[in-house]
Amino acid sequence: MSELIYGRQPIFEVLKAGQRKLNKLWVQDGLAGDKVHDILQLAKSRGVVVEWVRQDQLDKRVQGNHQGMVAEGSAVSFHDLGSFLRQLPPEAPALLVALDEIQDPHNVGAILRSAGFFGVAGALVLKWRSAPVGETAARGSSGAIEHVPIMRITNLANSIKELQDAGFEVIGTDMKGEPLNTHSVNPRSVLVFGNEETGLRRLVRERCDKLLAIPGSGKVDSLNVAASAAIFMFHFCRK
Amino acid sequence: MSELIYGRQPIFEVLKAGQRKLNKLWVQDGLAGDKVHDILQLAKSRGVVVEWVRQDQLDKRVQGNHQGMVAEGSAVSFHDLGSFLRQLPPEAPALLVALDEIQDPHNVGAILRSAGFFGVAGALVLKWRSAPVGETAARGSSGAIEHVPIMRITNLANSIKELQDAGFEVIGTDMKGEPLNTHSVNPRSVLVFGNEETGLRRLVRERCDKLLAIPGSGKVDSLNVAASAAIFMFHFCRK
Repeated sequence: MSELIYGRQPIFEVLKAGQRKLNKLWVQDGLAGDKVHDILQLAKSRGVVVEWVRQDQLDKRVQGNHQGMVAEGSAVSFHDLGSFLRQLPPEAPALLVALDEIQDPHNVGAILRSAGFFGVAGALVLKWRSAPVGETAARGSSGAIEHVPIMRITNLANSIKELQDAGFEVIGTDMKGEPLNTHSVNPRSVLVFGNEETGLRRLVRERCDKLLAIPGSGKVDSLNVAASAAIFMFHFCRK
Repeated sequence: MSELIYGRQPIFEVLKAGQRKLNKLWVQDGLAGDKVHDILQLAKSRGVVVEWVRQDQLDKRVQGNHQGMVAEGSAVSFHDLGSFLRQLPPEAPALLVALDEIQDPHNVGAILRSAGFFGVAGALVLKWRSAPVGETAARGSSGAIEHVPIMRITNLANSIKELQDAGFEVIGTDMKGEPLNTHSVNPRSVLVFGNEETGLRRLVRERCDKLLAIPGSGKVDSLNVAASAAIFMFHFCRK
C-alpha cells in the first residue's frame, strides 16, 4: 500500500524518521529556500528519486496545499499491541495513550502531536468507530505518526485487560473523576480519552483502574479533548 | 449590530450567561429532548420570543449544522483594556491571556474555551492580523466568549506596558524560554501566545518580563498552540 504525502513539513518528518520508504518525490520547478534545501539533501541521502515538475502536475495529484512538494511513500504502518508489549523491557517505565471513539481527525492529530512531543511510548486507536489515522490526522500530528508507534485495536475493553496484565495502570479521563493532582503517578500508565460529546463508553470506564479529571474553576464545563489530553500527558511526564 | 447564533450548545450558553440579548429564537417543528427543554425554559425566563418553523426555514438562514435551533442576538461585545484594569480590585489576583497573531480560528476558539474552563479573568486579542473572534472561534470556544471578557487591542507591545504598569508579570510562551516548572507564579500574570508558525513577534518577545517553555522529551519539536495554552493555564491556575 502506498499513499501520497504532501507539504514540506510532513515530507520532512517522513524523511527524518526514516520509517517509511519514499518511492518518489516530485518538486515544483524553481522551488528554493532553506527548508526545501534540507528536504532535498535528506532525500538524496535516503536514495529517494527526485523529479522536478510544473506546478499544474502537482495540482493534479493533490487537492490540498502541497507547497510545491508531493511524495509517494509506503502507508503508515500499524503495530500489534501484543508484540509491542512483548518487546518492552520488563518493568520499563512507559506512558501510553488510548483513544476511545474520538471523532474529529483534527483532535486525533493534535493528541498524537502532543504524544510525540512528550515522548509517549505508543498510542492505541480503534480500528472502527473513530476518526481514521489518515491524511488529516497525520498532518495535524506534525509528524508524530512517524515517531509514535500506533496500535490499531478492535476492542478497547479487552486491550485494557491486556495492558493491566502487563503491569500498566489504566487511567480513564472523565469529568467525574478525582482531581488529577491528587493522583500519584505509576511509572507504567495508560491514559484513555473519550468521545468529544459523550466521553468514555460505560464498559471502558468500568475497566479503568481509576478515573481522573482536570479541576477547573471557570464557567465553561469542559475542555476540548486535545487540550485535556495535553494537560494529562504533561502531568504524567513530569513524574 | 446583531448576529445569528445556531446550534443547541451555543444558544444555551448565550442564554445562560445572559450578557447578550436574544431578539428571537427559531425552533424546528417537533424538536424535543432534555437539552431543548432546558433551552426553551431559559428562553422563556429571559423573555425571548420563540417561533416554531419548518426545517427548510432554518436551512435558509444558516449554512452550518443548526441542530434545529437558530437565534438572532446582539453581537459579542468587546471590552476596553483601560476600563477593565481600572475596575479590577487593586492587587486582586488575576490571570490574563493575550493572543499574538494566532491565525486559525479553531485555535482561538480552543484557547478561549480553556480560558473559560480555568476561570481566566480576560483575553486580549489583536483587532487586526489575527483570526477574528467570530462565528468559528465562538463555536470552538464552547460558550467561553460569553463568560471571558475579550479586549480587542491594536498594539500588543503597548498593551504589555499598560499591563506591567498595573502590576502584571507578562510571560511570553516561547520554545526557547526557561522550563515552565522552574518559574514561581506571580498572582497577577499574563500569558502571551504567538503565531502557529512563527511564534511571538520580536518586539512582543522583548517586552515580556520572562519567556517560558514546556519541556518535552519526544521527537516532535513543538506542541499545537492550543495544547500549549491549555498546559500553561493549568499550571498557572494551580498556584
